[in-house]
Amino acid sequence: MPERRIFHKLVSLNDAMKIIERYYPLKPLGIEEVNITEALGRVLAEDIYSPIDHPPFDRSLVDGYAVRSEDLAGADDLHPMRLKIVGVVKPGQHPDISIGPRETAEIATGAMIPRGADAVVMVEYTRRLNDEVEIYRSVVPGENISSTGNDISFGDLVLEAGTRLGFREIGLLAGLGITRIKTYIPPKIAVFSTGDEVIEPWKKLSPGKVYDVNGQLITSGLKQIGADARFMGHLPDDYDEVYDAIDDALRWADIVITSGGTSAGVGDLVYRVFENMGEPGIIIHGLKVKPGKPTVVAVAKNKLLFGLPGFPLSCFMIFNVIVRPIVASMLGLKRTRTYRLKARLPYRVKKPLGKTWLLPVALVESEKGLTAYPVSMRSGAISPLYNSDGYVVLPEDRDLLIEDEEVTVELFDETRGFSKLNIIGSNDMLIHRILAESGLRSISRVIVTGSTGGWKAVIRGEADIAPTHLLDKETGKYNTPFLDKYGLKGKAVIIRGYDRKIGIVVQEGNPKNIHSIEDFLRNDIRIVNRTRGAGARVLLDILLHRVAEKKGLSFDDVKKMINGYTYEVKTHTAVAAAVKHGRADAGIAIEAAAYLYGLDFIPLAWEEYDFLIHKNRLDKEYVKAFIEYIRDKERIKKIASLLPGYKIPDDIGTIKAS
Amino acid sequence: MPERRIFHKLVSLNDAMKIIERYYPLKPLGIEEVNITEALGRVLAEDIYSPIDHPPFDRSLVDGYAVRSEDLAGADDLHPMRLKIVGVVKPGQHPDISIGPRETAEIATGAMIPRGADAVVMVEYTRRLNDEVEIYRSVVPGENISSTGNDISFGDLVLEAGTRLGFREIGLLAGLGITRIKTYIPPKIAVFSTGDEVIEPWKKLSPGKVYDVNGQLITSGLKQIGADARFMGHLPDDYDEVYDAIDDALRWADIVITSGGTSAGVGDLVYRVFENMGEPGIIIHGLKVKPGKPTVVAVAKNKLLFGLPGFPLSCFMIFNVIVRPIVASMLGLKRTRTYRLKARLPYRVKKPLGKTWLLPVALVESEKGLTAYPVSMRSGAISPLYNSDGYVVLPEDRDLLIEDEEVTVELFDETRGFSKLNIIGSNDMLIHRILAESGLRSISRVIVTGSTGGWKAVIRGEADIAPTHLLDKETGKYNTPFLDKYGLKGKAVIIRGYDRKIGIVVQEGNPKNIHSIEDFLRNDIRIVNRTRGAGARVLLDILLHRVAEKKGLSFDDVKKMINGYTYEVKTHTAVAAAVKHGRADAGIAIEAAAYLYGLDFIPLAWEEYDFLIHKNRLDKEYVKAFIEYIRDKERIKKIASLLPGYKIPDDIGTIKAS
Repeated sequence: MPERRIFHKLVSLNDAMKIIERYYPLKPLGIEEVNITEALGRVLAEDIYSPIDHPPFDRSLVDGYAVRSEDLAGADDLHPMRLKIVGVVKPGQHPDISIGPRETAEIATGAMIPRGADAVVMVEYTRRLNDEVEIYRSVVPGENISSTGNDISFGDLVLEAGTRLGFREIGLLAGLGITRIKTYIPPKIAVFSTGDEVIEPWKKLSPGKVYDVNGQLITSGLKQIGADARFMGHLPDDYDEVYDAIDDALRWADIVITSGGTSAGVGDLVYRVFENMGEPGIIIHGLKVKPGKPTVVAVAKNKLLFGLPGFPLSCFMIFNVIVRPIVASMLGLKRTRTYRLKARLPYRVKKPLGKTWLLPVALVESEKGLTAYPVSMRSGAISPLYNSDGYVVLPEDRDLLIEDEEVTVELFDETRGFSKLNIIGSNDMLIHRILAESGLRSISRVIVTGSTGGWKAVIRGEADIAPTHLLDKETGKYNTPFLDKYGLKGKAVIIRGYDRKIGIVVQEGNPKNIHSIEDFLRNDIRIVNRTRGAGARVLLDILLHRVAEKKGLSFDDVKKMINGYTYEVKTHTAVAAAVKHGRADAGIAIEAAAYLYGLDFIPLAWEEYDFLIHKNRLDKEYVKAFIEYIRDKERIKKIASLLPGYKIPDDIGTIKAS
Repeated sequence: MPERRIFHKLVSLNDAMKIIERYYPLKPLGIEEVNITEALGRVLAEDIYSPIDHPPFDRSLVDGYAVRSEDLAGADDLHPMRLKIVGVVKPGQHPDISIGPRETAEIATGAMIPRGADAVVMVEYTRRLNDEVEIYRSVVPGENISSTGNDISFGDLVLEAGTRLGFREIGLLAGLGITRIKTYIPPKIAVFSTGDEVIEPWKKLSPGKVYDVNGQLITSGLKQIGADARFMGHLPDDYDEVYDAIDDALRWADIVITSGGTSAGVGDLVYRVFENMGEPGIIIHGLKVKPGKPTVVAVAKNKLLFGLPGFPLSCFMIFNVIVRPIVASMLGLKRTRTYRLKARLPYRVKKPLGKTWLLPVALVESEKGLTAYPVSMRSGAISPLYNSDGYVVLPEDRDLLIEDEEVTVELFDETRGFSKLNIIGSNDMLIHRILAESGLRSISRVIVTGSTGGWKAVIRGEADIAPTHLLDKETGKYNTPFLDKYGLKGKAVIIRGYDRKIGIVVQEGNPKNIHSIEDFLRNDIRIVNRTRGAGARVLLDILLHRVAEKKGLSFDDVKKMINGYTYEVKTHTAVAAAVKHGRADAGIAIEAAAYLYGLDFIPLAWEEYDFLIHKNRLDKEYVKAFIEYIRDKERIKKIASLLPGYKIPDDIGTIKAS
């Protein structure tokens, strides 16, 4: 009988991951460029910033007539307007015509808006009369036009390294004209089965034998998540054969995975082979977990070796909790993860203290939510492979889980996870860079709603962090006065952010000689505005109120005098794009946006861009990490130095008001 | 200018699916056999019934010593028992030894239990002394043994036609020794882009042009769900070129998909090509939906042709709501679907009446649950490809959705969906056949808890249908008395099911001459019992109470007299398997299980197998469908005729009690 080995020191799952990381870098082994047509399922190894504006020009959203909106003022069924047709614009053409007063051009969906036109009337509201057209409806400027960069602006971060490329991502890359991309090289993994008791599934079953589940299960599971996995066959319980096969496999593979032969009983073959394969050898021998205790992990020849338990459920569970997250790290995956759902136990579950249980469960939906029915936890079972949806980790320090207790179910299927840090509110360029540098980006989602939308999202409990730069008309102060106004006094804090230089963005060289907001009232100037709730819109309105006062006019009068006041776009970069492409002569945006588009900039103010956070979120792991990160002001200054128009105050990251 | 076409009759999404189904059969085009090593991602085209018991023999769950449990009665740290070691059983061996009184054999995890032994003591509780072993703990019969068929029984339905084969399914098939399986042949789909305004992503962008998103998006999307899709390139706005290209593609493809050229404006090229491609030609021209109105569907040469809108978001949405479900049907997919989640709107959404909106949303998680933030719905947008998680269908007849209104979000990622019909309770063979025949199986999940578990699951609101055959000791009636006992009087109904013949299962030829429950008390008989809560267990206990009374013994005394009373298995088939493989001489099970294993059967009773359903579930679509299906008694009789031991009453499907 071979020497009997006792598990030296059982380690917990968490410790196991830490030990492995100490001996083996859990990161991709290399990068290769692939064509997008072959990239489905691969993992992106670079951040993708949009190299173009999308749409790349102002285009029509409908079939109809491109018009100057002022020509149709007052048009309706009883008072149609007649315009002269000066041409036809087809999709894909660069129109060589220009629309003058009382002129129009027929235009198709997707076609470029000709110079002079500022709206499109749908064909349904027109009647053609030879070279004229009768129009039965008025339009507002910008109606039925999708403007340049309105969807995605040049320089916008659209995809991040670590993203699994699904069909949506491939389509997006195509739409941005990006055809070659850097992807991580998937790890090469050799899979073996061991044990004289298992035979390959294509053979005849004889007494005492079972079919090998694990070889196919692990190999397919690795392929499914994108690894380059190969099943290398079944090995007999013979030291030399196992040693030679693994030694050979290591010439090709980055990782070797065996199943079976790891228990402390008769055999313990894999342990001995791994131990002799090279330094440092065995790093884990036994896990404090059920099922899955007899798991062996070794590092040798700078490769990673897993000896998984032979019993299928044990093997499957350790695959899920150890192998899969490690391979996911090596694949470079960051934004794709398995789903986690909350569910309740239908009855109490008793277990011994001191051991983590991995309990496969079947999920059942009812009015009350999801219930997690435990299914077989016998280590030799294979039925959980088809009758369970995921598993629950029952912690070491619990011996009884009660009926209706809420548990977290990890689903077996990988898919896109939801964000763990929701940033909802004002848009900014620096915050994206901070998220990228801090490593928080892959677990964050930024939803741009404008500052006021962010305040509402904090009240609704949806935003973890709401970036805000709201200017209070009465006090001239940013952000803090609104705690009272929104009823958040004592409930939320404003964390000091940074200052952004905001001003008027104009064409390069400022050909129209624009020097102040008053110039916006000039007849020869057309502006681009931000949507309601945006900080820049609020600033413009405050400045226009002052202009109105000075001129003895009403605010409404002033608004009406401004060409383009109703032409609204969503972001700073979209403002810059509108000016760059001549749709507007001026707009309000931050300096960084002007810089990105090579435009001139007339400063108006430094605005205070802060972070509104509900008090009940201050303890949330990633919120804390964010605040801590920005508190290092030298670090943030360094990141900000790459963009003009930012000023980092000494008190960044501290509580400004609460 | 070409003739202008008006959309003839816009149809709703639902009507669109119905029209397409009328002209084109939405089912797989063929079946091919593949090896499981190449089956990952394919769709199973046959039901898989287990061809073996799993485990295929009684095996040890631990490393230790195989013993006769009676030899260790009273063993503990102070009173160790010494047994003689008569051999070693290694994994994969068919042991040729037999364990006699006060004998044992060393045994490894996974190894076959030698004849005579009925339990295994873990090595941790032993001390070896040459050819003897000292044992410090007693064991109960069956301890540390995984018995034949206990996990999966021969004949169990394990996978259903229509299942996408992931790594778990591949592993399962391997474990059952199934290596060649029938899968559906994926449909061949040719994808084209059209329109002079789009250029391929690898070309240089010129004014008025946009990069083609749709070609790569659709092709990758189809590949991702398992279709055999090929991008056939970009076609100019030229009737003959488009006609010829599609005509050529139809030699290979089952489906042709184009994008662009479908609007009623300048061009409308695809419409004319499809119309002239063959009979019946165009079947849908325009959808009552936004985005995505200019969608054309045609059938020609017995193939399906889709003309999707050119604008990316429109194209993407119609891909999700029309193309993808149709291709999923042709792939034969039944059990895989996109996820649906409930979420709330963060603010009100206004829309015109009379049109369905497909609104892409970004999901945000908070304490209150999920919120669905609307993102751009502009048809030309591509940003939703990366900044949304799914979409909400806003119905035609709504013009305002209020803040916090609950909506259903369809996620873009496909994964396993949860069951729509939860059947929790007693296990039965006929019910599986009924579910299969009725077509309800693919949306159902059967969780076996025993009858009493089913009653509790109804009370908890988890079971839609709880199959039950509980016998009331006092009244001798099945099921109905328990409505009162469980407090469900007036709240739930019992729907009449059918009768099952239950009895004693014995070896073929009845070598031990077992004729009644009284024989279970014989010294030479070992039984297999069911788990607590199972109807057969309840029946056995009732019968044993009678035996006890008759013999003037207590029930506890009688239980103790029965060898194997504590040997519990989960299903009827597991009882039969235990008898078949000699682990027990007799057990209580239904006749169908005995028949399946070729065993003899001594009838005891006809038990009433009914369905407990909470009143608030009676209106649920699939519950109604189930009841309606079983009400056709001739149909159920026909299904039942393939199995012995079932009797279908005239009042099946009617309310028996409430």
